[in-house]
Amino acid sequence: MSKKVSRIGVMTSGGDAPGMNAAIRSVVRACAYHEVECVGIYRGYQGMIEGDFTDMDARSVRGIINKGGTILKSARSKQFMTPDGRKKAYRHLMAKGIEALVLIGGDGTFTGGMVFNEEYKFPVIGIPGTIDNDIYGTAYTLGYDTALNTVVEAIDKIRDTASSHDRLFFIEVMGRDAGDIALNSGIAGGAEEILIPEEDIGLDVLLDSLKKSKSSGKSSSIVVVAEGDKIGKNVFELKDYVEENLPLYDVRVSVLGHMQRGGAPSCYDRVLASRMGVKAVETLLEGKSNFMVGINNNKLDLTPLDKAVKGTHQINKELLRVADIMST
Amino acid sequence: MSKKVSRIGVMTSGGDAPGMNAAIRSVVRACAYHEVECVGIYRGYQGMIEGDFTDMDARSVRGIINKGGTILKSARSKQFMTPDGRKKAYRHLMAKGIEALVLIGGDGTFTGGMVFNEEYKFPVIGIPGTIDNDIYGTAYTLGYDTALNTVVEAIDKIRDTASSHDRLFFIEVMGRDAGDIALNSGIAGGAEEILIPEEDIGLDVLLDSLKKSKSSGKSSSIVVVAEGDKIGKNVFELKDYVEENLPLYDVRVSVLGHMQRGGAPSCYDRVLASRMGVKAVETLLEGKSNFMVGINNNKLDLTPLDKAVKGTHQINKELLRVADIMST
Amino acid sequence: MSKKVSRIGVMTSGGDAPGMNAAIRSVVRACAYHEVECVGIYRGYQGMIEGDFTDMDARSVRGIINKGGTILKSARSKQFMTPDGRKKAYRHLMAKGIEALVLIGGDGTFTGGMVFNEEYKFPVIGIPGTIDNDIYGTAYTLGYDTALNTVVEAIDKIRDTASSHDRLFFIEVMGRDAGDIALNSGIAGGAEEILIPEEDIGLDVLLDSLKKSKSSGKSSSIVVVAEGDKIGKNVFELKDYVEENLPLYDVRVSVLGHMQRGGAPSCYDRVLASRMGVKAVETLLEGKSNFMVGINNNKLDLTPLDKAVKGTHQINKELLRVADIMST
Amino acid sequence: MSKKVSRIGVMTSGGDAPGMNAAIRSVVRACAYHEVECVGIYRGYQGMIEGDFTDMDARSVRGIINKGGTILKSARSKQFMTPDGRKKAYRHLMAKGIEALVLIGGDGTFTGGMVFNEEYKFPVIGIPGTIDNDIYGTAYTLGYDTALNTVVEAIDKIRDTASSHDRLFFIEVMGRDAGDIALNSGIAGGAEEILIPEEDIGLDVLLDSLKKSKSSGKSSSIVVVAEGDKIGKNVFELKDYVEENLPLYDVRVSVLGHMQRGGAPSCYDRVLASRMGVKAVETLLEGKSNFMVGINNNKLDLTPLDKAVKGTHQINKELLRVADIMST
Repeated sequence: MSKKVSRIGVMTSGGDAPGMNAAIRSVVRACAYHEVECVGIYRGYQGMIEGDFTDMDARSVRGIINKGGTILKSARSKQFMTPDGRKKAYRHLMAKGIEALVLIGGDGTFTGGMVFNEEYKFPVIGIPGTIDNDIYGTAYTLGYDTALNTVVEAIDKIRDTASSHDRLFFIEVMGRDAGDIALNSGIAGGAEEILIPEEDIGLDVLLDSLKKSKSSGKSSSIVVVAEGDKIGKNVFELKDYVEENLPLYDVRVSVLGHMQRGGAPSCYDRVLASRMGVKAVETLLEGKSNFMVGINNNKLDLTPLDKAVKGTHQINKELLRVADIMST
Repeated sequence: MSKKVSRIGVMTSGGDAPGMNAAIRSVVRACAYHEVECVGIYRGYQGMIEGDFTDMDARSVRGIINKGGTILKSARSKQFMTPDGRKKAYRHLMAKGIEALVLIGGDGTFTGGMVFNEEYKFPVIGIPGTIDNDIYGTAYTLGYDTALNTVVEAIDKIRDTASSHDRLFFIEVMGRDAGDIALNSGIAGGAEEILIPEEDIGLDVLLDSLKKSKSSGKSSSIVVVAEGDKIGKNVFELKDYVEENLPLYDVRVSVLGHMQRGGAPSCYDRVLASRMGVKAVETLLEGKSNFMVGINNNKLDLTPLDKAVKGTHQINKELLRVADIMST
Repeated sequence: MSKKVSRIGVMTSGGDAPGMNAAIRSVVRACAYHEVECVGIYRGYQGMIEGDFTDMDARSVRGIINKGGTILKSARSKQFMTPDGRKKAYRHLMAKGIEALVLIGGDGTFTGGMVFNEEYKFPVIGIPGTIDNDIYGTAYTLGYDTALNTVVEAIDKIRDTASSHDRLFFIEVMGRDAGDIALNSGIAGGAEEILIPEEDIGLDVLLDSLKKSKSSGKSSSIVVVAEGDKIGKNVFELKDYVEENLPLYDVRVSVLGHMQRGGAPSCYDRVLASRMGVKAVETLLEGKSNFMVGINNNKLDLTPLDKAVKGTHQINKELLRVADIMST
Repeated sequence: MSKKVSRIGVMTSGGDAPGMNAAIRSVVRACAYHEVECVGIYRGYQGMIEGDFTDMDARSVRGIINKGGTILKSARSKQFMTPDGRKKAYRHLMAKGIEALVLIGGDGTFTGGMVFNEEYKFPVIGIPGTIDNDIYGTAYTLGYDTALNTVVEAIDKIRDTASSHDRLFFIEVMGRDAGDIALNSGIAGGAEEILIPEEDIGLDVLLDSLKKSKSSGKSSSIVVVAEGDKIGKNVFELKDYVEENLPLYDVRVSVLGHMQRGGAPSCYDRVLASRMGVKAVETLLEGKSNFMVGINNNKLDLTPLDKAVKGTHQINKELLRVADIMST
């Protein structure tokens, strides 16, 4: 085993996600448990460049496990993409005595970490924190389960008014590259159709499906649309298109937006964050680096960061089929 | 006392609101209690015109007190605005033996009821059901309290991500003519500024306020905007304007939309609906007509329908002042 | 107008209630607005006796409007019931330069404040903070609306399992002296019977009512019981009694307990707290003392503390009747 | 492939769980998709014995995916444990033309199904529906994820009042034989100690842990206790014991009770139910029998019913360790 790390830095970066605070708390407490010092870095790589640090102990993370957002704040840093930015970051880390990093975020965060690790041989371990669940190497990312419940609660509410007025609703949910939120929330929300980036069903199939739904006696319908769907129209254009081509329906649009990122994390996300934080710290203490902690088959494991970044997260084909059967 | 009414019709009309089902249930059970028959009319005045009726007893309203939307469905009816449409409606009511109506809805619903009452001397009593709280003669409309909680929960979630990223959010909430939802949810959500239809603060004041908020050390800000605000720009134009004139901020927009209409009603709305349903039935049984049931000073009372429709609901000036003090 | 108060103390005392933090925030911000200093007193009268103070400004209350509990903590103080305890408290207040107090709590809190005011001519204003809604002089106490929603959500959940298994549930809710929580949540939860301290319906009437409910075809039933109900049996004894005398039912008990005190405050409680905090500060600044801020007819007003303490909060008879009609 | 089944019966049995309705809906729709008829059986085996059946099609399961409880109701049947009872059930199934069964429930349900299958060669497939997550052969049972979130929300509320009053709370959660709910909700709720059936930490360790927690500066504490914990005292005796032996604390007890069984299912439970329902129907259509559908590594698979019943669900040791580290 390599010389033991004695001070670990932790930061959150990229879009925030519920469970990030629970992960910070876990990293801090795992450090305390192993008698390693822990330093919080504000605003991701940007705070690293500016030396915006805070010493953390078990007390500093009290009462945050159930809070959305991130107490360390998050940001995107263009400066860190330059060698000069990274040099500044390295100097601040050195000055502060930080010897290893836990990076909580998504693809961009991990890419930054890999470059930094390569240039400075700085030990880094990633924790996947993003609501989109679009990371290769883990069945779940932090915040995904919470976001699903937030979306489903919103769909339930919209269903109330849709069925009272016999309306068709297009509901846009997050997911630029991954349809996981749309697919799962669509099944759970009883959607008649689900549009995702991984699959282009085409406008004709959509119209047919809506016609069939109407003629089967359903007076109201919900279509869940991922931001990044491939059907070639945004959600407002879709509304216009359907109203023009399928005058049976009174159509409405709802864009759920940023509320999907917030809220108290679900039990699952809190437990997952607690587990991943411990694993990240202990992996660094074992002298390993350049891995992402993932959860697969309900066990924690490690995926090399480059695989996590380059690998392609796949949509679950069985779920597509279930969605199809459920909307018959 | 006039000859006792022996069969009462109940319908929901206009935009749906949480608590409408609880009101239907109450009307049905109050009828059962007073041994009067009760008939549900589907899709408001349109169903009346089409004779789309259903007999209701205590059993038919089991398990609906906590459901959003309306089991009787709602619609707007252009046909009812014509004498011919109203004649058809009258004939169907006669054929079914319905002798009086409980109308659950807003201004449009009550106006329709008044015209109908004038033409056919048909006894009608209104129950104010709309999330906007924009009806004269009642401190609360059904659904308003629930909508407030829905909005505040969404603002809380958006606050999480706003403060994690040091952003300014414009959040659009319902209220075309009334700022009650915006004002109350804005205070409860800790908004830095609130824009309502009853008051035009002007773009300069808005910018000043945001500048001051930034310079006071607040890194994130929430501005709650009612749909019908008078500042002369929609919420997306506001975003552009602020980004252009106040480059300190990373600005985002969230339009809460139709989810504000749905969801399980709050305790307050369920109790209010239960009280109003009883009052509406008993008012009809006393031989009265053409009133709206309202709640004032925690007591039920009656306002003539024409006053309810013509009167102007006022914004609470004290609340405007509290909002101002809270955002210091 | 008397010499202006320049430093105000604020504390929470007695059982905690959702909205207390929002009220603290409002007091602090109203002080800032009026350029008066504000000092937080920890753990109510006990912290006053120990001089456990903290200076507060607008920043110190950021992010607390949506938090349950009280950041100033609460406690009951036996010592403050003695002249010696109050003398210590007075000396600490003097030493700190505190010239007036805002007391957030219930009857006990106000009684303490009155005695202290009498002995030391110390200006005090009370804000009613208790989930029980048992204070004379205000239609609503802080936390009551939130507690109602918490209770109703729990009843909705229990109803799911009650109706799946055809069971009778006794659900005990808070309310030692006041039946407001039981009565309102019982109506909103669709309870078949409601037992409150203000009314003893007697065991025979209860049994009759349950028998009738069963024979009317209802397979499951909910009875909501206030802690302080007068039927002469606690909720577990009630269960045994009913099982013995009415073998038709499979009976279960659920005691909701302390979760009723917590949770994010509802929109109503946050707005009410914001309004009351401003009113309390401004009343002190007008040189008044010994009043409780109340809300009646949706307007803030003042009730002398001795009236608030001695007066009897009445149960709403109309609601009792509505409950009766709804369970037919 | 054996002769195709043409009519499938579906029932729920044992304790109800959120997601059962979603599973019923899925079974019905999968039958419709495969053009097989579907019959609902009320009250589990008891309804089978009484021939209490209802024909179901896609319409009969509209609007139930988000409802707690079970529209088919559940019961325990002593009669089905006798050969005579099972003979009656068989005759009713024959008379109705039901050729295979989907059984949604827990251990007891599956045992009944195995016996019935053995005696009458009747094809049966089980779906694990119970909040306790105590079934061998599946990582998740239906309702478990929802129950976890319900428990964690309750703990969050109790934490508010615990920390306002510096109290120690014992919170009893469901789990007679399995500590999964206690362990996961305890970690997510930030509990200082967790007592589960699988592990007896002993009273001394508990007291030591609470002492340490107090001396580390924590003023309030939460201990989550599974119903079936092995420490030898029920939760009220625990309270008395701790008050006697650790007078530092003001101790309270909260028994969460039956609300854990109800509520709208989480997104996860709705999706899992939808997947399992399809799998159960298609397994029957493949001519297989006597299996339980399970989810492992996010894939559906089959476990022989006797293994599901005899196998022992294990507590996750890694989670025990994480709980330990988090409470440092």
